[in-house]
Amino acid sequence: MSVANLRLYELVLENGRSSSPYVWRIRYALAHKGLAFESMPLGFTEISKTFGDRFKTVPVLGHGEAMLAESWDIAEYLDGAFPNTPKLFGSAAEAATVRLTDEWLTVMVMPKLFKMYALDIYNSARPEDRPYFRQSREARIKGQTLEAFTAERVSQLPAAREAFKPLRAQLKRYPFLGGSSPNYADYIALGAFLWVASVATLPLLASDDSLRGWLDRSFDLYGGIGRDPRAKPLFEA
Amino acid sequence: MSVANLRLYELVLENGRSSSPYVWRIRYALAHKGLAFESMPLGFTEISKTFGDRFKTVPVLGHGEAMLAESWDIAEYLDGAFPNTPKLFGSAAEAATVRLTDEWLTVMVMPKLFKMYALDIYNSARPEDRPYFRQSREARIKGQTLEAFTAERVSQLPAAREAFKPLRAQLKRYPFLGGSSPNYADYIALGAFLWVASVATLPLLASDDSLRGWLDRSFDLYGGIGRDPRAKPLFEA
Repeated sequence: MSVANLRLYELVLENGRSSSPYVWRIRYALAHKGLAFESMPLGFTEISKTFGDRFKTVPVLGHGEAMLAESWDIAEYLDGAFPNTPKLFGSAAEAATVRLTDEWLTVMVMPKLFKMYALDIYNSARPEDRPYFRQSREARIKGQTLEAFTAERVSQLPAAREAFKPLRAQLKRYPFLGGSSPNYADYIALGAFLWVASVATLPLLASDDSLRGWLDRSFDLYGGIGRDPRAKPLFEA
Repeated sequence: MSVANLRLYELVLENGRSSSPYVWRIRYALAHKGLAFESMPLGFTEISKTFGDRFKTVPVLGHGEAMLAESWDIAEYLDGAFPNTPKLFGSAAEAATVRLTDEWLTVMVMPKLFKMYALDIYNSARPEDRPYFRQSREARIKGQTLEAFTAERVSQLPAAREAFKPLRAQLKRYPFLGGSSPNYADYIALGAFLWVASVATLPLLASDDSLRGWLDRSFDLYGGIGRDPRAKPLFEA
């Protein structure tokens, strides 16, 4: 690991686990590049206390005096700031194509997951963060309670599982989404699963889901940074 | 255009228009590389007459004595066989990431389009091809008639339009799916729209769909190879 004076501000739950899918992308990006960092854990309510109006979300990366937000911008910054480490994006065309995968996951898949796990996130947050989480998220879902919003989640499991079909098809051809080795598309998708695993009281995937091989390979990457004894099961027993 | 002794076997409708989404990928791939080709038009029933058991689908590319099938394999072949022309895939990672987009389109979008336009394809086919098309496709849809299979298609328009959300999100950021210039991800998606435009009696897209700018830019590429006065409207009036 290079020492590079990097600080990663990340969201933590009551049990101390990093949970944001966008932070997980950057955790994998830093590992891909072999860059060590200092973790700066924040609860939901500490983000605004720490950054005021400057940044509303994590990840935030501190690099010496520089401070950056937005996971995509951080990933591109890392390639520029550390040119002698393995690239996240081999070309502008690869980056754009990965971003299309990001858009697919963001608009077609993540809302389905939030609909299933919003209440689990609430219950996993630090107690002092829960009122803020409830208030801000219930405002986004038009005043529904988190309980009502997630009440039918078991019936939504089939559609959520179906949404991952493109990943399964890709992983019949390649060991990783990025081909023979992982690229940022893998880290984007992994972030979603690590987010779910940080809170889920309902397993997302059937026990025989073919995503298991890729998830196992990926969680083992870089010394097993995706492994955590506090993780909830992603697969039904 | 280089002269390269290339023959592209492609599927044609009664009006002579090339319609296969997979052939269109290769038409754009050849144009991207500046490679001229001889068109070898075939109706549905001529494919087996021409290739016997060797190839069941088009595109088929003839290059001198070599004959290749499967659009993905043809695209990769072209990069290898013509190394001094613009690359379709700048790297193995870009190729794999484009293929993930291909899987998304193939498994999540194309079935929705076939469900809407199967009968239009039948009606647009050469009369001598129609019995074969009906028989083979009705066998795939479990014996339903093409008429029954597509009867509810107007009610399926919203879901079909929704399926393109990742493209719209990407095209807010970039002029092409591949970024500042088109890559094979663009040609894959374009193939789907050109297929629909070759047969559709029901416009796929709302008149104000933000995909219009990208479709216009893309149809104009390479001397306007996507433009055809026989095209059916993709947009509602």
